[in-house]
Amino acid sequence: MKTLTGETTIRVRYAETDKMGVAYHSNFVIWFEVGRVELLRQLGLTYAEMEHADDCHLPVVDLRCRYKAPARYDDELVIRTTLKNVRESLLHFEYAVLRHNDNMLLAEGETVHLVVNSRMEKTQLPEKYRRVLTGN
Amino acid sequence: MKTLTGETTIRVRYAETDKMGVAYHSNFVIWFEVGRVELLRQLGLTYAEMEHADDCHLPVVDLRCRYKAPARYDDELVIRTTLKNVRESLLHFEYAVLRHNDNMLLAEGETVHLVVNSRMEKTQLPEKYRRVLTGN
Amino acid sequence: MKTLTGETTIRVRYAETDKMGVAYHSNFVIWFEVGRVELLRQLGLTYAEMEHADDCHLPVVDLRCRYKAPARYDDELVIRTTLKNVRESLLHFEYAVLRHNDNMLLAEGETVHLVVNSRMEKTQLPEKYRRVLTGN
Amino acid sequence: MKTLTGETTIRVRYAETDKMGVAYHSNFVIWFEVGRVELLRQLGLTYAEMEHADDCHLPVVDLRCRYKAPARYDDELVIRTTLKNVRESLLHFEYAVLRHNDNMLLAEGETVHLVVNSRMEKTQLPEKYRRVLTGN
Repeated sequence: MKTLTGETTIRVRYAETDKMGVAYHSNFVIWFEVGRVELLRQLGLTYAEMEHADDCHLPVVDLRCRYKAPARYDDELVIRTTLKNVRESLLHFEYAVLRHNDNMLLAEGETVHLVVNSRMEKTQLPEKYRRVLTGN
Repeated sequence: MKTLTGETTIRVRYAETDKMGVAYHSNFVIWFEVGRVELLRQLGLTYAEMEHADDCHLPVVDLRCRYKAPARYDDELVIRTTLKNVRESLLHFEYAVLRHNDNMLLAEGETVHLVVNSRMEKTQLPEKYRRVLTGN
Repeated sequence: MKTLTGETTIRVRYAETDKMGVAYHSNFVIWFEVGRVELLRQLGLTYAEMEHADDCHLPVVDLRCRYKAPARYDDELVIRTTLKNVRESLLHFEYAVLRHNDNMLLAEGETVHLVVNSRMEKTQLPEKYRRVLTGN
Repeated sequence: MKTLTGETTIRVRYAETDKMGVAYHSNFVIWFEVGRVELLRQLGLTYAEMEHADDCHLPVVDLRCRYKAPARYDDELVIRTTLKNVRESLLHFEYAVLRHNDNMLLAEGETVHLVVNSRMEKTQLPEKYRRVLTGN
């Protein structure tokens, strides 16, 4: 399996800051999701369609984030997302959040996702997605 | 129709503050929703069941909020919600957000809601809800 | 005063959806802020610097939003922001939120902002900002 | 050091749900913060005052969450927070999120916090807090 990595850029919103003057830490978890969905899009997959057309949903079952330096209001951030592993019913992504102007690493994280249907029952990743995500 | 009013108390979360050191203004809109749902509960109605059992949903079609003074981290806030009007397919609520410790008015607002089914089609408020909400 | 209008595009995040399957209504208020800040940037002004360098802050004192049609997950939305009025200590913006692929109007709104310093005291918009914002 | 544990109850807001019909996963991170602050309050400490009076801030440097079962709209959730470790400049908390009506475990997590001043410089936990938090 070759490694699949994608990058997307977001800008820290005022609503995402807190009274410390920095981005509140739970927003990184939302940015991970943005990075994940944009990586899928760069591979030709649309998560909205995975859900709608194939009843294939990817809830997070494990989340980890290590914070290195604060993200500040209006900072442009690069979310670098890597698909680490694909199994029948599990996907594993890694993330790095970098400040765009000086490439400083602000946070690193990972998420593990279970493949489920809309009734939250474990299912298998449809073959067409597995082919793209494993590069086979 | 007699006026129906209820109160509920929330505490400003750190996540709800912004870099000005006060609660970010969109959070008042979320607190209005909390106030609305708790007013319904005080009237014996559960919005979760309105949606689930009766396919009756109340999306906001009009929103207004006037901000008087900032809410700060860890402040206890009273959300005072009043049902202003009930029509076949419309509900109209008013809100006051007060600081608990000195009763200071921080914001006032109102929302208008359309009654729809899960396909977002306009429908009528089921009779059992209308009876409670109009006090008849 | 000539009318100043700007457009920016955002994509609806999964975190912004709710159990009705559409974007939760308070998110439009956050998108208004994104539109406002990007309009300022298109005029050569950086809100982060207004706050940091000139101690000039623009809290919302009045907010209005009329919702016409739902925004859905992964929709690309155009936030069209217009500066309607500039007074010594007040700014008034209008917004239209349009679905990018068919230009459908999803919501319209407006916000009024007071000019304050970091102690939340009313102050005057610095001359350099007023010149740009009034087109003089 | 004796183990310090506290419980607080929150209710899942509509704004916290997503189009899967469950609470979006980043909200658990916000609920951890609510649990942490309420544990401190139960010990006689107010985080707002730690920040304001003692310039003592506790940004998260490491976050972990394992999701076991979904939280749904209007569910009452118990956030059980345990202080696991206190060092000169580090605090370590653990969390369990339980559904109130049947005590089902929905998620488990932990956070590690650095003690910093308002310039984000590492500092030491003031003696008066350390005494309470270590039970000495």
